[in-house]
Amino acid sequence: MRTAFHLTSGDEDHQNTVLTIAENLSKDETIEMDDIAVVAQAEGIDPVTRDGTHSDTVQELLDSGIAFKACSNTLDMMDLDDGDLVEGVETVSSGASELTRLQEDGYAYLRP
Amino acid sequence: MRTAFHLTSGDEDHQNTVLTIAENLSKDETIEMDDIAVVAQAEGIDPVTRDGTHSDTVQELLDSGIAFKACSNTLDMMDLDDGDLVEGVETVSSGASELTRLQEDGYAYLRP
Amino acid sequence: MRTAFHLTSGDEDHQNTVLTIAENLSKDETIEMDDIAVVAQAEGIDPVTRDGTHSDTVQELLDSGIAFKACSNTLDMMDLDDGDLVEGVETVSSGASELTRLQEDGYAYLRP
Repeated sequence: MRTAFHLTSGDEDHQNTVLTIAENLSKDETIEMDDIAVVAQAEGIDPVTRDGTHSDTVQELLDSGIAFKACSNTLDMMDLDDGDLVEGVETVSSGASELTRLQEDGYAYLRP
Repeated sequence: MRTAFHLTSGDEDHQNTVLTIAENLSKDETIEMDDIAVVAQAEGIDPVTRDGTHSDTVQELLDSGIAFKACSNTLDMMDLDDGDLVEGVETVSSGASELTRLQEDGYAYLRP
Repeated sequence: MRTAFHLTSGDEDHQNTVLTIAENLSKDETIEMDDIAVVAQAEGIDPVTRDGTHSDTVQELLDSGIAFKACSNTLDMMDLDDGDLVEGVETVSSGASELTRLQEDGYAYLRP
């Protein structure tokens, strides 16, 4: 199965909760996950930036096979570009269009 | 494609973020959107009221083709009626039933 | 139709809003609901515990036919077990896997 997480909160504890829930899903042996994606947008963009408080966690989750996608509208608004992102994070035209496409493709949607 | 946004936050900055994300989706040229709806409920009702902080933005988005729907349970609880809403906002029996119907009809769900 | 609510907020007013919206959906005569489930996780676990601020409301909703599911990862992290839950609350391996399965089974997802 496939699941997309929506990361939009600017609260660092909340961001950590979302990342932990995504990690726990990837380790849950009662379900066979084909894909897990985290779409970061608005105030939730910080974890996927190199200097982000939770960037080390994002790097570990990327290495474990979880995909991370950053909203380019948000990057533009915050004067950030690809070079500011944790290596391996993909840029998407907008968080909302990506999450619409993913749900159309059969992904479940979770916004903890 | 079709996407429904769930607007339930009472925080004005958060409300603005939801409206901006809906607007950006409507302008995103990488996706063909047939319908975008915003369902306002609970503390998220303020933007769709005439005196709401973000009522001008809601009017602009309505004019651009985005649908807005207000939960009538919330209106009852807050002693509001149709006349208190921005012109063009539709009333629905409950936010939860409307969002259930929309997802059943193939809408993606986003709760930024 | 079938709808799953995601209860993850630690704010007691917000928790109350989620429970009220679930109850209102069950009473909405414009929609025929076959199943309503509430999945409690992370900081949203308190209402489904015996000593939770909203445990009486959860008991009433359980009695009315709404299902409640508690994330066992959260229970482990908080040193809680089945005996600490309101009677009738089901334990699931993880909130995220359960909500993925429910959406795969055709449940709408709501995260007020």
